[in-house]
Amino acid sequence: MRPAPSSIPRLVVRLKLHGDSVLGPGKVDLLECIDRCGSISAAAREMEMSYRQAWMLIDTLNQAFGRPVIETTQGGRSGGGARLTSRGKRIVAGYRALQAKVAKSTRDDVEAIVSLMASSAGRRDTRRR
Amino acid sequence: MRPAPSSIPRLVVRLKLHGDSVLGPGKVDLLECIDRCGSISAAAREMEMSYRQAWMLIDTLNQAFGRPVIETTQGGRSGGGARLTSRGKRIVAGYRALQAKVAKSTRDDVEAIVSLMASSAGRRDTRRR
Repeated sequence: MRPAPSSIPRLVVRLKLHGDSVLGPGKVDLLECIDRCGSISAAAREMEMSYRQAWMLIDTLNQAFGRPVIETTQGGRSGGGARLTSRGKRIVAGYRALQAKVAKSTRDDVEAIVSLMASSAGRRDTRRR
Repeated sequence: MRPAPSSIPRLVVRLKLHGDSVLGPGKVDLLECIDRCGSISAAAREMEMSYRQAWMLIDTLNQAFGRPVIETTQGGRSGGGARLTSRGKRIVAGYRALQAKVAKSTRDDVEAIVSLMASSAGRRDTRRR
């Protein structure tokens, strides 16, 4: 369990193509969860989505990236195991690198926007520097 | 009218608080459109949404930022004029600055992800450098 989220907004980055989301935090979290859990069904449970939902997200990635992002092994009670392919790993790494860059380069800009929220709502979580 | 979008994904940044979108490209485009059109109804028409949809987006911003982001003048056939408040202008400027910073700092990372898409789909819009 993660600690309760703060009242500071977080920045979400998403790659979109023709209005559709190709890659964002949800799909990347799911890939990482599959890698950790070793199966789609276990990852779906942990992320509180149906197997069908999880599979549809994966399929969207497969289509967008032209090759499977996970490989499955048949059998087992939970519908078989699953792990990331090389492409899946590179997608996760690429997104995390992007996300880290965004977080680092926009700290001041996010703070400027958040200060517009905080200054009138009567809550000051951070002091101006 | 803008030119047809390319097949290169674009990066969308959004500020979220507790899972809800506080500020993203849709709301910022709407604010800019209101500023340009001089009324909410004209901006809603240009952005192909209902007046009600436009007003709800504005109201979300008003709530999040604790003060009105637009000010309206009553009367007129289109339901009165509207313009950005000082806070509205600062929100737009803040988001655009953030967006520009993200675009600049993530060019290589986006290219790396896009190259994973292009390399298997048989389409190469850009050469590797």
